[in-house]
Amino acid sequence: MAYYVGIDLGGTNIKAGIVDDQGKMLNKSSIKTNADRPCEDIIKDMGNLAVQVIAEAGLKKEDISAIGIGSPGTPDNEAGLLVYAKNLPFVNAPMRKIIREVIDLPVYIDNDANCAAMAEAVAGAAKGVKDSVTITLGTGVGAGVIINGSIYSGFNQAGSEFGHTVLVSGGEQCSCGRKGCFEAYASASALVRITKEAAEANPDSKLNDVIKDLGKVNGKVAFIAQRMGDKAADEVIDKYTDYLADGLANAINTFMPEVLVVGGGICNEGDPLLVPLQEKTMSRPFFGPGVKKTRIALAQMGNDAGIVGAAMMGMNCFDKNLDGTAC
Amino acid sequence: MAYYVGIDLGGTNIKAGIVDDQGKMLNKSSIKTNADRPCEDIIKDMGNLAVQVIAEAGLKKEDISAIGIGSPGTPDNEAGLLVYAKNLPFVNAPMRKIIREVIDLPVYIDNDANCAAMAEAVAGAAKGVKDSVTITLGTGVGAGVIINGSIYSGFNQAGSEFGHTVLVSGGEQCSCGRKGCFEAYASASALVRITKEAAEANPDSKLNDVIKDLGKVNGKVAFIAQRMGDKAADEVIDKYTDYLADGLANAINTFMPEVLVVGGGICNEGDPLLVPLQEKTMSRPFFGPGVKKTRIALAQMGNDAGIVGAAMMGMNCFDKNLDGTAC
Repeated sequence: MAYYVGIDLGGTNIKAGIVDDQGKMLNKSSIKTNADRPCEDIIKDMGNLAVQVIAEAGLKKEDISAIGIGSPGTPDNEAGLLVYAKNLPFVNAPMRKIIREVIDLPVYIDNDANCAAMAEAVAGAAKGVKDSVTITLGTGVGAGVIINGSIYSGFNQAGSEFGHTVLVSGGEQCSCGRKGCFEAYASASALVRITKEAAEANPDSKLNDVIKDLGKVNGKVAFIAQRMGDKAADEVIDKYTDYLADGLANAINTFMPEVLVVGGGICNEGDPLLVPLQEKTMSRPFFGPGVKKTRIALAQMGNDAGIVGAAMMGMNCFDKNLDGTAC
Repeated sequence: MAYYVGIDLGGTNIKAGIVDDQGKMLNKSSIKTNADRPCEDIIKDMGNLAVQVIAEAGLKKEDISAIGIGSPGTPDNEAGLLVYAKNLPFVNAPMRKIIREVIDLPVYIDNDANCAAMAEAVAGAAKGVKDSVTITLGTGVGAGVIINGSIYSGFNQAGSEFGHTVLVSGGEQCSCGRKGCFEAYASASALVRITKEAAEANPDSKLNDVIKDLGKVNGKVAFIAQRMGDKAADEVIDKYTDYLADGLANAINTFMPEVLVVGGGICNEGDPLLVPLQEKTMSRPFFGPGVKKTRIALAQMGNDAGIVGAAMMGMNCFDKNLDGTAC
């Protein structure tokens, strides 16, 4: 059995774990990122955490084939660098070099949304499928594209920024600078905005009661109010699922994946979200008569997607002998 | 030197030619499609045309490695079928089988927009580049995606229908059934619509004079009126390039290709179209600091793209031993 270390670098925590070649995680551990310190110190701690989880699994360095790192931002896997990362102090950071000074194993780097898609493709909702796309609905909208079993991220490893494709030309301001991106209409943050607007426009709706009870507006408000029979809540969910379905149908028309995986905390709302979403999404793509249709599935890997996906990305690069000549 | 037959099946004409392994076309010929007859007869004529161009090039069947066919609609290359085609009488048509009855060579089938992208990738604007996307602006908006030197068309060979991604949610009706597709805002037909609307809204504009002179509205009207100093024409071109740039920036964010190729008759308008388009498009994608940027280029293959691309798709499939087990 071959084993891999997966490291999931986040703005708050660094998580790492040991994963076997079937995508099964043996153990995991985490430390604080403390993102306000020099990037060299953060990377050294990533290396130390790799050493720690190897030991905690009862393994030795020799048992590990490779280390995979999932990070925010854009990597340069060939050069072993993290070119830049949103909200983290990395600019052309020599990640591979510093980690190999701590533990000398092959090191591969990719974007975290791409690693999440890899986790679903190896061990989750798109297991056994060659072409899949994973869309994660959170503060933003993450997208990872798997083509022929490998991550596709373009010639510059900066893709796929499918969350930053315009869906409503001239629409809501997006964090990327454009107006009307998919992310600005389909993220959990977008649902919060739509909910707020509806609550203000309908002062007598139950949306306002729920917001008062919770003391805040979040992605659950509309679903709670809907269960109370609120019409304005129905409209919020209808509007949100309409935009989301338009974006998912765009992803299908663009990539024609065998499976389109949808994940993120909001999916926990279950049928009241998923039933209209499935219906709307599948009525929109451009399948000619007799053409096989994409299947929509819920993400299965949850919080472990980052670690498992990073490890499986590492396995994939290692198998393809992408050994990092610059390393 | 290896030679390939490229066949470009269209609603009006069937074109075929001999292409060498560098993408150079030796000769070509064409016949009428006569699309209202049984598909078997059309396919037999495609085979006969292949025989003809081989002879006209002074070659023998033994000199040809493979035949590539570019067709509208969705093929099933593995099974050797054309699953369906818009405006043509093909439903699960056994294209490979019938052609091999006329001339027994390996036969491969792909979509025409994909073949156009392949032509640009082998011998045109994206020559020498591994990852490119070609967008063709015509009656519709065609898109072909080349990843790692091969056509990417999804698990069902129905991709990429990037022209049918929604850019203006709830916007103009598209031929695919959705509202607000990229195609409905960026095709030559869309430019005609925008021009008509502006001419009606501005009865004193020179747009109306040009339309009167030409006796019709086409994609040139706004550019002719702009050269006469017409302000409404400026606004038409500004509006059209805005939508087009939004769609092209979407393609960049989605695929992060090294080269994005733009083609179609409208590109002949030159700088008045291309200068604002380039400027708008390149200011919109999501490139982080230090990340390599996509290059935009004009299509170079013109009317031969279909034949050359089909032949080079055939070469690519032949090289990969996609020999069609069902054949």
